[in-house]
Amino acid sequence: MPISPGPFTGRTITGLAQDLRAGRTTATELVMQALDAVTKLDPQLNAFVTVDHDGALAAARRADHELAAGTDRGPLHGVPVGVKDLIDVAGLPATMGSRHYAGHVPAADAACVIRLRRAGAIVVGKTTTHEFAYGPTGDRSANGPSRNPHDPERMTGGSSGGSAAAVAAGMVPLALGTDTGGSVRIPAALCGIAGFKPAYGAISADGVFPLSRTFDHVGVLAGDVRDCLPAYRALTESQLREDVSGARMAWLDPAGLNPAGLIQVDQRVTDLVRTASGARDEVRLPAEVVTALRETYLVIQSCEAAAVHAARLARAPELFGPELLERLRVAAELPGWRYVQAMDGRARLAASVGALFERHDVIALPTVPITAPPLQEPETEPDGEPGAWRGTVRATLLSMTSLWNVVGLPALTVPAGTVDGLPVGLQLVCRPGRELLLFEAAAHLPEKAPSTPGPAAP
Amino acid sequence: MPISPGPFTGRTITGLAQDLRAGRTTATELVMQALDAVTKLDPQLNAFVTVDHDGALAAARRADHELAAGTDRGPLHGVPVGVKDLIDVAGLPATMGSRHYAGHVPAADAACVIRLRRAGAIVVGKTTTHEFAYGPTGDRSANGPSRNPHDPERMTGGSSGGSAAAVAAGMVPLALGTDTGGSVRIPAALCGIAGFKPAYGAISADGVFPLSRTFDHVGVLAGDVRDCLPAYRALTESQLREDVSGARMAWLDPAGLNPAGLIQVDQRVTDLVRTASGARDEVRLPAEVVTALRETYLVIQSCEAAAVHAARLARAPELFGPELLERLRVAAELPGWRYVQAMDGRARLAASVGALFERHDVIALPTVPITAPPLQEPETEPDGEPGAWRGTVRATLLSMTSLWNVVGLPALTVPAGTVDGLPVGLQLVCRPGRELLLFEAAAHLPEKAPSTPGPAAP
Repeated sequence: MPISPGPFTGRTITGLAQDLRAGRTTATELVMQALDAVTKLDPQLNAFVTVDHDGALAAARRADHELAAGTDRGPLHGVPVGVKDLIDVAGLPATMGSRHYAGHVPAADAACVIRLRRAGAIVVGKTTTHEFAYGPTGDRSANGPSRNPHDPERMTGGSSGGSAAAVAAGMVPLALGTDTGGSVRIPAALCGIAGFKPAYGAISADGVFPLSRTFDHVGVLAGDVRDCLPAYRALTESQLREDVSGARMAWLDPAGLNPAGLIQVDQRVTDLVRTASGARDEVRLPAEVVTALRETYLVIQSCEAAAVHAARLARAPELFGPELLERLRVAAELPGWRYVQAMDGRARLAASVGALFERHDVIALPTVPITAPPLQEPETEPDGEPGAWRGTVRATLLSMTSLWNVVGLPALTVPAGTVDGLPVGLQLVCRPGRELLLFEAAAHLPEKAPSTPGPAAP
Repeated sequence: MPISPGPFTGRTITGLAQDLRAGRTTATELVMQALDAVTKLDPQLNAFVTVDHDGALAAARRADHELAAGTDRGPLHGVPVGVKDLIDVAGLPATMGSRHYAGHVPAADAACVIRLRRAGAIVVGKTTTHEFAYGPTGDRSANGPSRNPHDPERMTGGSSGGSAAAVAAGMVPLALGTDTGGSVRIPAALCGIAGFKPAYGAISADGVFPLSRTFDHVGVLAGDVRDCLPAYRALTESQLREDVSGARMAWLDPAGLNPAGLIQVDQRVTDLVRTASGARDEVRLPAEVVTALRETYLVIQSCEAAAVHAARLARAPELFGPELLERLRVAAELPGWRYVQAMDGRARLAASVGALFERHDVIALPTVPITAPPLQEPETEPDGEPGAWRGTVRATLLSMTSLWNVVGLPALTVPAGTVDGLPVGLQLVCRPGRELLLFEAAAHLPEKAPSTPGPAAP
């Protein structure tokens, strides 16, 4: 059964900004609403690891004083945000979703948090992450699984599952996440909100615990897609090309992203998303390019993650969850020559993917080709093959998103309707520098597609 | 017994250039002298894999016509050169020292060969390389071992062993080599000539068969150190800082580069080289930095070499020599996370090595801490440990040179005298951009140090 809407459900950052400046609300009131909602809703959703009650209220009072004194930091001024527990916030625990970091309190803010605070945003707390962000399901964490507001017995997706649940339940209007293979976009799509993964490097990852440095991105999650842009502007130093308009969109069919047949694709999801996109043209990626993108993602991510965790793997393997431990042990065995070959092939892959944009600015496809799976599916298949089901779910969840991390392209997910009452996301992808086209395309989608029958979304 | 001097022994490129322009010789005469010397001396030295008799003579005639017509391409105009058989020369076989490339004839010149020809140099032939350049001994090659002109029963060192032997025997005044861990400098030192490995990337490696892309450098070998500079200028697009003088030199003791005690160091070599350098100050590298440099070199080179050869290793392992096959199989097992960690550590290592140059411009040390070992030492030690002796020789030969490849610094070797009649090299290292200081330091060394007793060098 879906969770009741929270105080920020249906409210945009732009609307909050107007209310604040018109004196219809205060930052203190917004933060108190957020804190109350967390108290009320979080026991069912487990979106937060740490809530900074006192710090958030103090920051809200400062924000109110600043506004009253005429200092206006822009659209995020006074807005409560959640920050994924993989991102350092000075003085708050940062667990990385792992028992290895129990009790760890960083002394300094991550670069993206510094920028967020400079823009006037108020950190309400730290959100649940999949253990070390190494998984798209969001249900393996020292903090326990985050739960989907549309059905708490289902996954949020991950790894930024807490950020997605917090926004989707209306506890906060905005949250920070990280995205190495889809970790912003997957939970945003499965929880029915918007999520934006910028171009590689567009938001600094300093102070963010690494998963796979080559693919790690910081991104934003918001209830309304229009809120992703001001949040992104506050977080990046990249210049946006403002002189763009008239995005030419093409559809990339999920069937073409499944050359090995290992991915589940729900045709109802595909049909709903295609209708929602309004795309008439169609483009294709050659099967060998898709296969190479998947191999490149797997090899580079595995080797880089194993490098991050090598010392912990040797010193205290028992502190990892069993699923992650097994995956890291496999990753640690991958030979270096495969990493070298994968890195060498990236320029060629970027050129192959770039060909998609020869006659189009924005590529549309499902963010995830299924709806949110149930939580805590067994680790063993009925036929006894260990972890096969989970392996398939992981591969399916990542199948439409990780491609774009390999080549570092900006990608946005927007809610596209529901199937069986569960949210579905439309993913829009562009070239670096064309982000405004992406947001323009998202703003001019056809009227919301009819959802397939099922319980109503909140 | 040393080989008799060849036609270019004791002659500099500058001298040849003057002779050519004064009409005292012609390019055709120089090339014929080179070809005659190869015919006479190469059966004892095995420096050449392929000799391009007709092509070289035709190029020499063109060079003579150009000079007669007033087209002067500069100091290399009309000068015969040898090119390592790892570097593509259009229309000539390029064996890479391997049976895998028997009969392989590239259609185009490597970038460095294009530049060499533009500067008027004449390619006489291709010189023996250690199999795929993967070894500093120069005695494992499909073409058989190259032999040291100072004692043909001894190694040239490698992998550019043929280039070193060809120049040291006076068959050509100049040769191209490649240097991934010392492959220009080691054979130059052991054969008693000069060799220069520029800064990483200063000479294009396009058209050069890779060993380990991160560390691969193209370099030059010449009988006289003063000839390395005009050759380098012809091959690079890097700008040299001309406004430098008064190099401050410091000594880096070989004992400090042997923290694990696995390297043979001949104290007579050390003493001779230190005297030859005239260095009074001394600098040190912390033992942990030396250890990290060696680990970084081993891991990165192994993974990159295994990536280059993965397909051959799977398809036709029997075409590798047994020593290389075994080394590649070990290299192919190295896990990717070690490669990632090694790559991540490079910036820190560069800073540690950079500290050597805080108060000095040029670091002096032996190029190789021993003289040329005998050829074809057994692969098995008396106590039965397979390959231990060879492993030690490899580690010893590389011990003073590979450090500088890891951080990409320019390094020059100059003859420093002899021990037991066998040549010893003084290595001079600088920061990129300070190459002229390096050559200035080499030109202003103290008078030649007295050699220790032994048979006379040629």
